[in-house]
Amino acid sequence: MRCIGVAVKPNKPEAGPVIRKLVQWLRERGYEVVLDEEASAACPDCEGRSSRVAVAARADLMVVLGGDGTLLSAARGLEGRDVPILGVNLGGLGFLTAITLEELLPTVERVLAGDFTVSRRLTLMAEVHREGRTVAQMEALNDAVINKTTLSRILDLETVVNGEYVTTYRADGLIVSTPTGSTAYCLSAGGPILYPTLPALVIIPICPHTLTNRPLVIPEDAVVEIIQRSSGEDVHLTVDGQVGVTLQHRDVVSLRRSPHTIALIRSPALNYFDVLRTKLRWGER
Amino acid sequence: MRCIGVAVKPNKPEAGPVIRKLVQWLRERGYEVVLDEEASAACPDCEGRSSRVAVAARADLMVVLGGDGTLLSAARGLEGRDVPILGVNLGGLGFLTAITLEELLPTVERVLAGDFTVSRRLTLMAEVHREGRTVAQMEALNDAVINKTTLSRILDLETVVNGEYVTTYRADGLIVSTPTGSTAYCLSAGGPILYPTLPALVIIPICPHTLTNRPLVIPEDAVVEIIQRSSGEDVHLTVDGQVGVTLQHRDVVSLRRSPHTIALIRSPALNYFDVLRTKLRWGER
Amino acid sequence: MRCIGVAVKPNKPEAGPVIRKLVQWLRERGYEVVLDEEASAACPDCEGRSSRVAVAARADLMVVLGGDGTLLSAARGLEGRDVPILGVNLGGLGFLTAITLEELLPTVERVLAGDFTVSRRLTLMAEVHREGRTVAQMEALNDAVINKTTLSRILDLETVVNGEYVTTYRADGLIVSTPTGSTAYCLSAGGPILYPTLPALVIIPICPHTLTNRPLVIPEDAVVEIIQRSSGEDVHLTVDGQVGVTLQHRDVVSLRRSPHTIALIRSPALNYFDVLRTKLRWGER
Amino acid sequence: MRCIGVAVKPNKPEAGPVIRKLVQWLRERGYEVVLDEEASAACPDCEGRSSRVAVAARADLMVVLGGDGTLLSAARGLEGRDVPILGVNLGGLGFLTAITLEELLPTVERVLAGDFTVSRRLTLMAEVHREGRTVAQMEALNDAVINKTTLSRILDLETVVNGEYVTTYRADGLIVSTPTGSTAYCLSAGGPILYPTLPALVIIPICPHTLTNRPLVIPEDAVVEIIQRSSGEDVHLTVDGQVGVTLQHRDVVSLRRSPHTIALIRSPALNYFDVLRTKLRWGER
Repeated sequence: MRCIGVAVKPNKPEAGPVIRKLVQWLRERGYEVVLDEEASAACPDCEGRSSRVAVAARADLMVVLGGDGTLLSAARGLEGRDVPILGVNLGGLGFLTAITLEELLPTVERVLAGDFTVSRRLTLMAEVHREGRTVAQMEALNDAVINKTTLSRILDLETVVNGEYVTTYRADGLIVSTPTGSTAYCLSAGGPILYPTLPALVIIPICPHTLTNRPLVIPEDAVVEIIQRSSGEDVHLTVDGQVGVTLQHRDVVSLRRSPHTIALIRSPALNYFDVLRTKLRWGER
Repeated sequence: MRCIGVAVKPNKPEAGPVIRKLVQWLRERGYEVVLDEEASAACPDCEGRSSRVAVAARADLMVVLGGDGTLLSAARGLEGRDVPILGVNLGGLGFLTAITLEELLPTVERVLAGDFTVSRRLTLMAEVHREGRTVAQMEALNDAVINKTTLSRILDLETVVNGEYVTTYRADGLIVSTPTGSTAYCLSAGGPILYPTLPALVIIPICPHTLTNRPLVIPEDAVVEIIQRSSGEDVHLTVDGQVGVTLQHRDVVSLRRSPHTIALIRSPALNYFDVLRTKLRWGER
Repeated sequence: MRCIGVAVKPNKPEAGPVIRKLVQWLRERGYEVVLDEEASAACPDCEGRSSRVAVAARADLMVVLGGDGTLLSAARGLEGRDVPILGVNLGGLGFLTAITLEELLPTVERVLAGDFTVSRRLTLMAEVHREGRTVAQMEALNDAVINKTTLSRILDLETVVNGEYVTTYRADGLIVSTPTGSTAYCLSAGGPILYPTLPALVIIPICPHTLTNRPLVIPEDAVVEIIQRSSGEDVHLTVDGQVGVTLQHRDVVSLRRSPHTIALIRSPALNYFDVLRTKLRWGER
Repeated sequence: MRCIGVAVKPNKPEAGPVIRKLVQWLRERGYEVVLDEEASAACPDCEGRSSRVAVAARADLMVVLGGDGTLLSAARGLEGRDVPILGVNLGGLGFLTAITLEELLPTVERVLAGDFTVSRRLTLMAEVHREGRTVAQMEALNDAVINKTTLSRILDLETVVNGEYVTTYRADGLIVSTPTGSTAYCLSAGGPILYPTLPALVIIPICPHTLTNRPLVIPEDAVVEIIQRSSGEDVHLTVDGQVGVTLQHRDVVSLRRSPHTIALIRSPALNYFDVLRTKLRWGER
């Protein structure tokens, strides 16, 4: 690892001092450091400002300061480059950002010495097919969500797995989630928690009209096709809650495991169940 | 009862013959009949066409042919006039339209002879207060729903009941429902079923971010205030899934029992649990 | 109020000092004090020991120290006498015991001065009918639960409300709960929260075999009859999780509002939603 | 395949004719046929009666007539012998018995000609450890369930996965299920549906006291240990709802994938989603 990229949550001037310290510490040890626009805005006197794209293209290690949303965004920015990511939370513990500010420098030191393990997370490739053409292609670390705007009617989403018809969900929407995403939006919709390295995907409707629908957990190598059967116009596909595209009647959303994975550096202090228990307050009565 | 109003679901030409038969049967017995635009479109040679507003203003009995959505719309059209409504389903059994086409004429005959009972349903008055002014006012037979569009962030909805702070829901949205609405959208969101004449309201979040939220059933005379605490702009209040208004940051949605009730004529054949069991398929294994 | 009864959770010697202080304080002001066996065991030198039955029969005010279970038990002991109950928690906040030890004496002082309000809670009368005879009769402040032991087969529980057939639940069990009980076992089974003074009951199956069953909220004056249609022998009716009876095939469990209510003295510091929010941790992220 | 075993649901004399026809058809083609006691009771004039154990020990193919419970029992009887099972339903479609009586002979013919595929299902090995000794060992195709009898207090079940502490469930019980079992009891407890060949297990509490618990889906090679931390005495471990053992305080229930799998012969007519859709009535509105 020669070049360390630093990304930070937008509008976090209070992250300035810690970024400055991190940059200084790294440069003293001979590492190159590149900062994305947000990191640079938080620490204007730190040199090494670069575009987000350039940071993602050059870094051998990404240090991301923020919450889970910031990490999702940074992971997407890598566009498939297999670079380990160290997620550091500014504020509360995150599922993807389990390392605290206090642990930052000691953890970076250990990582640079090669003393770390990663949790390798599968990602989803979402494609939209329209009349034989692929009109959109996006990757998701958490989930792909099809839903509708306020006044549109209930959606009809015909769902096919590996060429076999599953059902036509009548619902406000449908989530296809990775194990990583199972503790995000999926959980709000009533989904189960998937151990993060489980080779599986979850399909779960949002506010289903049929009372018998339940979350469906399928193998990671399944190909999911969702055909938009509703006549309404305000239907969208959104990926990781961050980027989206409008769906037309009869569009086919195809979801499958992407060839890329995301390598999250594990917290040396907390295992997965520690994070789960803390975030979901399982330890309390 | 001198004047019978007939309303029908839009774009239902197949309802023409039954409307013609009903109109003829009523006129032969000396009743005045007024048809709304949709009923008139389905039976163009039936006289008595009138605007929806005029039908609602004159009828002593409303015969509504369609599904639950058609009945909700007709009920709103009454604007508080206390007129019994006979809901007749075109197609499958509805919660509000439990009478079949075959039962139509015999039931109308019995109703006109005074041989009927009504199920009196409470309705909700929803008001939007903005900087001291009331900027919208709507009535709901089913529910009032606050939600957001696709890409907006999660909502923060501060909720107060009878002046006492309940919680600030972090969710995709929030439903306040009457007992009548408890078998509609509320049920998709995971709500309980309220006996239709129970003097109660339900408050239930849509995809709540907090796992401990549960549906809350409160007395019908409670005043519910919901303060829109989110910064996002695409937040809406929708009533009965049919009419809506955009909410701004800090708007207060006030919900209370309306002085008006809706008088639904009961099916002579099916009681409430019969309809519930059939609609929800409780009888089947 | 002349005579104050004191009841305490079993095996709580640490409650001795506070009981001693309370008794002394009351006697100094000329009140008669009677202690149940448990209170007396916690404070052996306090005079006024009496049987639980005698305490319940004489007290004009019951002070109960413990958790919700202790209060349920004390309330049952009153056998319908309309005596206000002051629930004081030893340890964590309870739904029924919202007053802390620190607030005990000031609250008792205010209560004796007449400066208090009560939350009047409906109770359930549960009867078991067998071949025309009533073989058991019990009252519940929280709930009546029918369930089965480990290896018995799923139950078939035919349910009738006000003489109208509802459904035959196929489930591990069935709960009929008061609003007070809605935050107890009912909540674990997936039930809604009922405002404590709502005039309603909840019927909810435990682990239903049919996926479409939902909690059913009915008016408080409804008569619920549950016919035990299962052939298995290990079926029980349990009331407030404390007292029970074995049910035979074809036994009818009849549930209706009891003529008695329980008068819980409200906390001057916390309203119902405060308690709810604290107990369910709604305030936290 | 030389020897065909036939097992049938107890007390099904009406299965006699079909068994007779099957036995005759097989013997005419030179196959040896062995019938378990139940099959023999249904067809007393069919020769080849044998004990259940002997049938399971000799058969190269098991034909099981009944419901899912009968198949679970037959599968357990194999004690790890890798013999394909053909599940035929007597009555309604089963998840494990998707073949109808009409399809029986044609399917058997195809199977004997080698024209079939199997769905290979993982099974669970459940062991009870007490003070260092293994006091019970059972295999499950569906699930292992820890629960309690009626009046016992809530259970405290400390749960550890791969040596990492997960949480101490406070609940009426706990289910650890295979994918096959996910459509059985697990579903009643609110669990997700796992595709049957997914390499995963589900852990789900029954009526959890903590509102934040959710089903947990973990890799199939995980070792789950559950320590019975409750003081109550009436706690049981039950496997596939059929065989059980009493648990003592501090007993450790250890669950892991068994080395054995069950080879279910697939229906040539229905794929997994067809069965799911039919059983759960997803196709209906």
